[in-house]
Amino acid sequence: MTRMTPEEFRTAAHTLVDWVADHRARIPELPVEARTRPGEIRAALPEHAPEQPEPLADVIADLEQIVVPGITQTQHPGFYGWFPSNASLASVLGDIASSGVAALGITWQSAPALTEVEQVVTAWLRELCGLPADFHGAIQDTASTGTLVAMIAARERASGLSEDRGGLQAVDAPLVAYTSGHAHSSVPKAVLLAGFGRENLRFVDVDPVTYAMRPEALAEAMAADVDAGRRPAVVIAAVGTTGTCAMDPVRAIVDVAREYGAWVHVDAAMAGSAMLLPEMRHLFDGTELADSLVWNPHKWMGTILDCSLLYVRDVDHLVACMSTTPSYLKSAADEQVVQYKDWGIPLGRRFRALKLWFHLRLEGAEAIRARLRRDLENARWLAAQIEAAPGWRVLAPVDLQTVCVRHEPEGLTGEALDNHTLSWANALNVSGAAFVSPSILDDRWMVRISIGAEPTERADVEALWDRLRAAV
Amino acid sequence: MTRMTPEEFRTAAHTLVDWVADHRARIPELPVEARTRPGEIRAALPEHAPEQPEPLADVIADLEQIVVPGITQTQHPGFYGWFPSNASLASVLGDIASSGVAALGITWQSAPALTEVEQVVTAWLRELCGLPADFHGAIQDTASTGTLVAMIAARERASGLSEDRGGLQAVDAPLVAYTSGHAHSSVPKAVLLAGFGRENLRFVDVDPVTYAMRPEALAEAMAADVDAGRRPAVVIAAVGTTGTCAMDPVRAIVDVAREYGAWVHVDAAMAGSAMLLPEMRHLFDGTELADSLVWNPHKWMGTILDCSLLYVRDVDHLVACMSTTPSYLKSAADEQVVQYKDWGIPLGRRFRALKLWFHLRLEGAEAIRARLRRDLENARWLAAQIEAAPGWRVLAPVDLQTVCVRHEPEGLTGEALDNHTLSWANALNVSGAAFVSPSILDDRWMVRISIGAEPTERADVEALWDRLRAAV
Repeated sequence: MTRMTPEEFRTAAHTLVDWVADHRARIPELPVEARTRPGEIRAALPEHAPEQPEPLADVIADLEQIVVPGITQTQHPGFYGWFPSNASLASVLGDIASSGVAALGITWQSAPALTEVEQVVTAWLRELCGLPADFHGAIQDTASTGTLVAMIAARERASGLSEDRGGLQAVDAPLVAYTSGHAHSSVPKAVLLAGFGRENLRFVDVDPVTYAMRPEALAEAMAADVDAGRRPAVVIAAVGTTGTCAMDPVRAIVDVAREYGAWVHVDAAMAGSAMLLPEMRHLFDGTELADSLVWNPHKWMGTILDCSLLYVRDVDHLVACMSTTPSYLKSAADEQVVQYKDWGIPLGRRFRALKLWFHLRLEGAEAIRARLRRDLENARWLAAQIEAAPGWRVLAPVDLQTVCVRHEPEGLTGEALDNHTLSWANALNVSGAAFVSPSILDDRWMVRISIGAEPTERADVEALWDRLRAAV
Repeated sequence: MTRMTPEEFRTAAHTLVDWVADHRARIPELPVEARTRPGEIRAALPEHAPEQPEPLADVIADLEQIVVPGITQTQHPGFYGWFPSNASLASVLGDIASSGVAALGITWQSAPALTEVEQVVTAWLRELCGLPADFHGAIQDTASTGTLVAMIAARERASGLSEDRGGLQAVDAPLVAYTSGHAHSSVPKAVLLAGFGRENLRFVDVDPVTYAMRPEALAEAMAADVDAGRRPAVVIAAVGTTGTCAMDPVRAIVDVAREYGAWVHVDAAMAGSAMLLPEMRHLFDGTELADSLVWNPHKWMGTILDCSLLYVRDVDHLVACMSTTPSYLKSAADEQVVQYKDWGIPLGRRFRALKLWFHLRLEGAEAIRARLRRDLENARWLAAQIEAAPGWRVLAPVDLQTVCVRHEPEGLTGEALDNHTLSWANALNVSGAAFVSPSILDDRWMVRISIGAEPTERADVEALWDRLRAAV
């Protein structure tokens, strides 16, 4: 098998998708967390590339024996770690269609369907989330990238398109970025990559009970910077945060930011899926006034990675920052089409809209909402059990699907309590039946239980609660 | 069909991969260039997302009737546009495996296999390209992103990790970037996004015959900047350029850059595949001394988009720029594993190494090299025909697979010649049998014929030459 023909592909692909179906069916029997030792997989693979073709059967055998055991199974009903990272099988089909069509997205002309299906599905999702029509969406690989794009757009707005002059090296007053200390690590990373510098990044105080950003603290920080000759350029509101899924108050943040002309970026990477539920939109109040928003259908909603959406309101400004087409080359045709290359960093793009298209069409919005509601109910149920159990504590509001928990036996404090927490979390994880993420809150270890894996039903959460009590 | 089960997936996936095989088989009968009118595809799709599930047959019918006609067929034997954008069916299988495994790559721990297979295949390719062992590779989505990462790394080296202080807003001398005026548009874009500013971006003169960067002009530009109090931070050498596939002389460029302590980044996005051929490596002489290199297996080599490789030598510096882990949280385990999140922008990554793994294993390196050599011979053959034909001209050296051509009838010059060029190129493109990219060289339109689509054989190039002569 050298250059594979379509008929050879047909045979091989049937074998492979059978393997995929079998694999997905047996995931509940696998340990959730990978048990690989560092270097183990490298050692199992040849040092040099093959000169001659190998049979597909050998490659699939290696998938089975080397690759699968080396993966933490996010599609497992016992996966409660990090964020949900669902890969609905409907969206997997869309991903396969994308690979099969093999389109090259560099300009509208290179693949009009790639651009226009992306326009359509990002508009569908905007509407499903109740966002206003002036939010224009594009697919990014991840929220890290979308947030970096937003930071660059904010930088260029605050500096009057300094990239066309001396760049950030010639601004007259340092631009400053603000976020909560509970923001995701991708937020400070994006601020630093955009060139602001750590001295111009403020971590604004959060409320001690809700862990949400305090708008008064934001106002004070901005005023102090202005007094010192600096310019507030951008605020990143986390809705919700990584640690506890706290919801920064966007409306109040927008009010403060507007006073200083600062860009407001909303990071709703995980929790944004809750905007699909009208009854949860109050948590996102004010988001409709933000300048940009990132949320990841590839997390809780379940469109397979990588599928992050960046919505911006001022597309003309974004294009001015990102376009590589000098103005004198613009033509009448450009006015009629979207050139997504000018909405982000990469020139070339995969046809990622197909996985959203397949996901939404094969499941329908109603079923997606029903699943999210199931997860909210499961989280409320678990939080209620924990609150009612002696020695157990829920440590932060359970607005959505994240439950932050600690078991606090009588008299155990400080490092001893930390050791106890890490010990039972570790016991749970090594059991292979469930996976949770220990995390630090107020300088003490606690355990985040992030409910929302697609296959996780109430019975699984009940089993988890039994295991939690057995582990301590 | 709401939440799709593995068995429902199995049935659907068999149907879908049959469609993919049929589609790939009939591509030669499709027009190469999409004939879509702006807005046509959007108008064919519903305004609102479906609330209820739709049958797979409807989605596949839309793929067939709406999507496929809206795609310029880069897998067509008559595709000579832009760059080759091959999607070998072996790599499509790898992409399907990646979707099927549905791994979440955020840290080594989240999917050790994803990290370690990526280490292995990037090392295989490094060796196949004859690059030194201190080149460490990671997969990026595209060269645009890889180049931006390199620009940030260069910025941080020249500024002594300014991101940890006042960022680019507090450098004492403006950092300057240098590239050829023939560099790809992603290069100036990356420089601007990294915050350098257009006033600190130099387009260095090229040789009037080879269109390669003149190292003496680079040395002069750097000296002038230093005299003016600026600091040369980075040179981007294009190997080869977009317009004519000119090969900037990397060794001489490195010599100049070293005098000023500037980072050297090599953009070999398209042409890098030629490094797989030992007999062509003289064109890349000096690349082994560069600080970073980007090349795209998703172009000529044919691993389906998106699969761009960024190699860097000083990984510790790259991690210092990109890491989100404060130093006091580093542990002994970190020393044993690679955390690719710290090698680029996104935190989350797909298992893209699988498409390289499948491609290399199912085809073998020998077959890949044979195909590249076939393309080089086809380009030389076509260039020889053109040079021997009265009225036709080859406009730039044909070092690799790009042939830049003009038909110059007696007495036709200036705008009239431009109109003639655009007219015959357009006639060829609208015929649907072939697709070429008109481009501007020395202020005059010419036609780039980029040979290297996977199915393009000598007979196709012969037919192209017939069509070229018939079109003028």
